[in-house]
Amino acid sequence: MNRITHDAARRIIAQALEQGRALGLKPLSVIVLDAGGHPLAFEREDGASPGRFAIAQGKAYGAVMLGMAGTAQMQRAEAQAYFITCANAAFGGQMIPVPGGVLVRDSAGDVVGAVGVTGDTSENDAAAAVAGIEAAGFTAEI
Amino acid sequence: MNRITHDAARRIIAQALEQGRALGLKPLSVIVLDAGGHPLAFEREDGASPGRFAIAQGKAYGAVMLGMAGTAQMQRAEAQAYFITCANAAFGGQMIPVPGGVLVRDSAGDVVGAVGVTGDTSENDAAAAVAGIEAAGFTAEI
Amino acid sequence: MNRITHDAARRIIAQALEQGRALGLKPLSVIVLDAGGHPLAFEREDGASPGRFAIAQGKAYGAVMLGMAGTAQMQRAEAQAYFITCANAAFGGQMIPVPGGVLVRDSAGDVVGAVGVTGDTSENDAAAAVAGIEAAGFTAEI
Amino acid sequence: MNRITHDAARRIIAQALEQGRALGLKPLSVIVLDAGGHPLAFEREDGASPGRFAIAQGKAYGAVMLGMAGTAQMQRAEAQAYFITCANAAFGGQMIPVPGGVLVRDSAGDVVGAVGVTGDTSENDAAAAVAGIEAAGFTAEI
Repeated sequence: MNRITHDAARRIIAQALEQGRALGLKPLSVIVLDAGGHPLAFEREDGASPGRFAIAQGKAYGAVMLGMAGTAQMQRAEAQAYFITCANAAFGGQMIPVPGGVLVRDSAGDVVGAVGVTGDTSENDAAAAVAGIEAAGFTAEI
Repeated sequence: MNRITHDAARRIIAQALEQGRALGLKPLSVIVLDAGGHPLAFEREDGASPGRFAIAQGKAYGAVMLGMAGTAQMQRAEAQAYFITCANAAFGGQMIPVPGGVLVRDSAGDVVGAVGVTGDTSENDAAAAVAGIEAAGFTAEI
Repeated sequence: MNRITHDAARRIIAQALEQGRALGLKPLSVIVLDAGGHPLAFEREDGASPGRFAIAQGKAYGAVMLGMAGTAQMQRAEAQAYFITCANAAFGGQMIPVPGGVLVRDSAGDVVGAVGVTGDTSENDAAAAVAGIEAAGFTAEI
Repeated sequence: MNRITHDAARRIIAQALEQGRALGLKPLSVIVLDAGGHPLAFEREDGASPGRFAIAQGKAYGAVMLGMAGTAQMQRAEAQAYFITCANAAFGGQMIPVPGGVLVRDSAGDVVGAVGVTGDTSENDAAAAVAGIEAAGFTAEI
């Protein structure tokens, strides 16, 4: 399995923030987690509220731990709220099951980590994450 | 960025309580948090129940950490309950997403803290917070 | 049993801070808890670090919950560390067993609450608490 | 009060890592927290273990919340272990009281945040943090 290197993590964040600026989004916060759900890199733009680390982390953490991206988590939450509530408790309250938690896959299709973006609408957050992930040569699953 | 000084925090609480008495509200509890969500000042009036600190803090904490006042949090909770449930877990169970958690902005529009009021209806709680915030020269977002 | 009124809580804080200024102490944070360990009032002076609420609360909470002031808690911690460690766990990690957690007794000798002060040395913190408690007509046990 | 901007946070991390490479240190992880203890930026170098985020955060968090850098925390822990144990519980288990948690002060001497570095010896971690902090125009207190 490949992994997200330090350089790749920085490229993902730089490009996600660049995309946010190109689209005129609100200040973003971006985290990159490895395949074990542990932080590789994080940045919060000026003007973002102080709690954005927890939201970005929660989006990415749920994605990588369940192998299920934010959009699928949201659908599951709407269909079966108690499952997500209980999964969240099992993961220590670290899931934020909405778009913006994006799986990172390598060329073999393996999940090598996840990116969490927060600050604008969930859909725009996800778009910024995708831009970063693809710029680093990985495949994004929103 | 400006900040809420000790004197300003005391003025916010004094005026919020004064407003509560002028409107004939039930006994109020009022907290002022700084821009990082940390308590600057708190007062609980005689007759208020002992758990009011946690409610006042939760209203203000969610506001400042998400940069989203109580009314907006309530709307999000009604539209997408699982998001607020999960954000609450990510913040250690410290969010109370209803009016009465009021953002404090300085003249440049930056969030410099939040005020949480509890004891009467959520709308009256918010009105008391606004009176305090404006008396201290800041702008309130309910 | 008497109780600490809202007015008395404010007087305790005002006088504790006044004493801190008179003695040239570092910026102080002062909390007043009721007989159930719940916050009645809190203030943090300009220049105090953001985590001072938790320290002030911990000093006062352990005092009122065990009926044992900070000095006695410290002696117990030095003699029997595991007892204080386990009591702290039982109380949800809310004890800070050093001077500056001061019991408030009424004229009948009953514990009606506790005051927690932090910011200077533990001994000076306790002295500021005593000044506030006595100004409000109660008896302090450090 | 000044604050650590997004650009300054990135400069701190880049320079701390550069210093680590110049000194031949083991792979480092570096976090920058704002004045409220909330993450602004984080990077983990290739080869660092997955739990390094929590260690870096803990070093910086205790520093900014208590207004006490890692060296002073370590001295307090050695003199009065139960105080640090209890403060850690009050802060939700987020303190790592050793060098490498470095306070960031602005030109007026105010604490505007903290940097946490982990990966090599505590002393080398602190040296890398200082290099980053000074490169961004702030004053470091180890």
